[in-house]
Amino acid sequence: MSLSARIQAMSESPIRKLTPFAQAAEAQGKKVYHLNIGQPDVPTPKVFMEQVRKFTEPTLAYGNSHGEEVLLKAIRKYYLGLGMDYALEDIYVTNGASEALGFAILAICDPGDELLIFEPFYSNYSSMAQMYNVQLKAIATSPENDYRLPGEEVIEKAITPKTKALLLNNPGNPAGTIFTRKEMEMLVRIALKHDLMIIADESYREYVFSGSMISFGTYPELAQNLVITDTVSKRFSACGARIGYLLTKNKELCQQILKCCQSRLCCPMLEQYGAAALYSTPPEYLAKVNAEYKKRSETLKEELAKIPGLQFSKPCGAFYVMVKLPVDDAESFATWLLEHFDLDGDTVMIAPGAGFYLTPGKGVDEARLAYVINCQALRRAIKILGAGLQAYPGYKLK
Amino acid sequence: MSLSARIQAMSESPIRKLTPFAQAAEAQGKKVYHLNIGQPDVPTPKVFMEQVRKFTEPTLAYGNSHGEEVLLKAIRKYYLGLGMDYALEDIYVTNGASEALGFAILAICDPGDELLIFEPFYSNYSSMAQMYNVQLKAIATSPENDYRLPGEEVIEKAITPKTKALLLNNPGNPAGTIFTRKEMEMLVRIALKHDLMIIADESYREYVFSGSMISFGTYPELAQNLVITDTVSKRFSACGARIGYLLTKNKELCQQILKCCQSRLCCPMLEQYGAAALYSTPPEYLAKVNAEYKKRSETLKEELAKIPGLQFSKPCGAFYVMVKLPVDDAESFATWLLEHFDLDGDTVMIAPGAGFYLTPGKGVDEARLAYVINCQALRRAIKILGAGLQAYPGYKLK
Repeated sequence: MSLSARIQAMSESPIRKLTPFAQAAEAQGKKVYHLNIGQPDVPTPKVFMEQVRKFTEPTLAYGNSHGEEVLLKAIRKYYLGLGMDYALEDIYVTNGASEALGFAILAICDPGDELLIFEPFYSNYSSMAQMYNVQLKAIATSPENDYRLPGEEVIEKAITPKTKALLLNNPGNPAGTIFTRKEMEMLVRIALKHDLMIIADESYREYVFSGSMISFGTYPELAQNLVITDTVSKRFSACGARIGYLLTKNKELCQQILKCCQSRLCCPMLEQYGAAALYSTPPEYLAKVNAEYKKRSETLKEELAKIPGLQFSKPCGAFYVMVKLPVDDAESFATWLLEHFDLDGDTVMIAPGAGFYLTPGKGVDEARLAYVINCQALRRAIKILGAGLQAYPGYKLK
Repeated sequence: MSLSARIQAMSESPIRKLTPFAQAAEAQGKKVYHLNIGQPDVPTPKVFMEQVRKFTEPTLAYGNSHGEEVLLKAIRKYYLGLGMDYALEDIYVTNGASEALGFAILAICDPGDELLIFEPFYSNYSSMAQMYNVQLKAIATSPENDYRLPGEEVIEKAITPKTKALLLNNPGNPAGTIFTRKEMEMLVRIALKHDLMIIADESYREYVFSGSMISFGTYPELAQNLVITDTVSKRFSACGARIGYLLTKNKELCQQILKCCQSRLCCPMLEQYGAAALYSTPPEYLAKVNAEYKKRSETLKEELAKIPGLQFSKPCGAFYVMVKLPVDDAESFATWLLEHFDLDGDTVMIAPGAGFYLTPGKGVDEARLAYVINCQALRRAIKILGAGLQAYPGYKLK
């Protein structure tokens, strides 16, 4: 009995694959600074648990497949505040943004269809595409060009009759890039010209530290070709709630997404009530969190600039940066940091870059850093990274 | 821009598709008895919310992709109590049993591969198979033969080189059947002979009102060919928690399932803590609930027997029965009950049978009833069903 080819082709998460080494290091008494995972240290607004604790129904019953109305209304209001008018029936609550992305891929693509992405990209996009036998087709961006988009002709050249959508993450994980207005307009133009869908993962919308972020939802001409995926995970530091959602004004797509929702009955109820309450958080919360991340991004830049031979993307948003390391293989280096290195008992965990690329051989000397720890811890973590490089047998500047 | 063929081929849930009619009836002031959905009215054990309320971490962070240890340990202990020894690393927490089934299908089958099922079957199996482009191949059981399994040669004849697994639900939704020891042994023998996996959905294990239920997990020779899916939804009347899980001793499969788990990061945290606490519920809880359902199954039989021209499956377990109605089209009748009928202001909602069959034309005069309401309400609901039939223009015994 052999397992499916598609499951065997799925790669392990670059964010989580080194976890056993981190656990072993921690078991040895080392302190590990986790820059590998986008798990913010920011407290979840208290309204979340306050709302959850209020649940007194005797039976925790199934809810709407579509999503609980209180949450749908909260999401609608939040989007109205951003100038986007989504009706309740245009919004579908999902098990994290992951499920929203999965439903969008499944509804738009048949096996063998193609999705265009810019690499590096959020590694789980590739797992989701593989689950549904959809081909990702990667268009390169590079550390040398600060991960900016290529020209229109390069993108159009990648489009084939099998291309169904552009899968875009803005602000971007892992490189922290934000599309400029010119880039946005180009992407909208391409989607309309070739009648492609845009699947826009805007989970990091509130984390903008340089420039400004424009939502694809603000282009009315794109309405029928757009799916936005979003989540409370990062916005409200509630990753463990697993409450995401999908928005689209394409009614035909809505009808199909509802079938997907029905097939798994509903999303967790308590977490939906909590998530709805999160949207009553006063705007000062997000402003304060944003200011904190901006400070972290500055600290990060300052500290990374001190490391000889290390290049890094401009941390514009989404609390991630890609770094190009002066080593041959970032995964070996990341493993070595956990297994064989410490600075006064401390080490650091980073996510190897190759997992954020589709093209074999790309990103092998890169890594993603999530700056989700406070400035002091961040300074310490980057100092450890620098010291680790100096001590690493494979350090190229030796 | 056309949507995918696979999503368009997905059928709407027969359990939920008439919901708009029910809502309209309720808006008109009608009381609707819901026999369409397996949503128990039994209270969720209080320990669930007690445990949830204890959560005081400042940040609701991501958990283990695999599942929280406290829940894994609770599940392990529950299975040990049933004589099945699953290690923690053989258990994977999922978003409901639905996700467990999806992961199992995805990990075992490539597009075009076949899964054998007995029809009628739980309708969402078909949605899940369609999502992953897997072909369900149905083997008939019939109301005339009380939905018992056919002989070994009939099942073996359906096996092709593309057959990867048998997808089995025991106790069975929608017909309330329970496999006999002889049937179990036959299924195990077939799986081993043809090296097929058995995906055993044993969500209703505790709901047995006649005969006894044997788990596929008690056949040691089947260990490498078995995946069990399970959930707290029905067992503890916690459907809204969406906490399911998957168990397998096949290490290769475990490794692949972990990748699926990582691709969606983790399951909702609060609900996992609550679910773990559910397993500390004293055994008297399940015994009491079981006794209540047994009473309901007796009431149901008694009342259904009074309706002329109606045949029904023996309600052995899983709080469902299939009924064969003296009408041409059960969906038209079910819709009519909601739109045009009431008995002193009350009506009843049932799930049309065709959605539980794969073979076109089958089950059109059948419906599934979930006996998840108390005996008094159940008597009333079945009385309404009988009166509805008498009044229905398409009633065949007129």
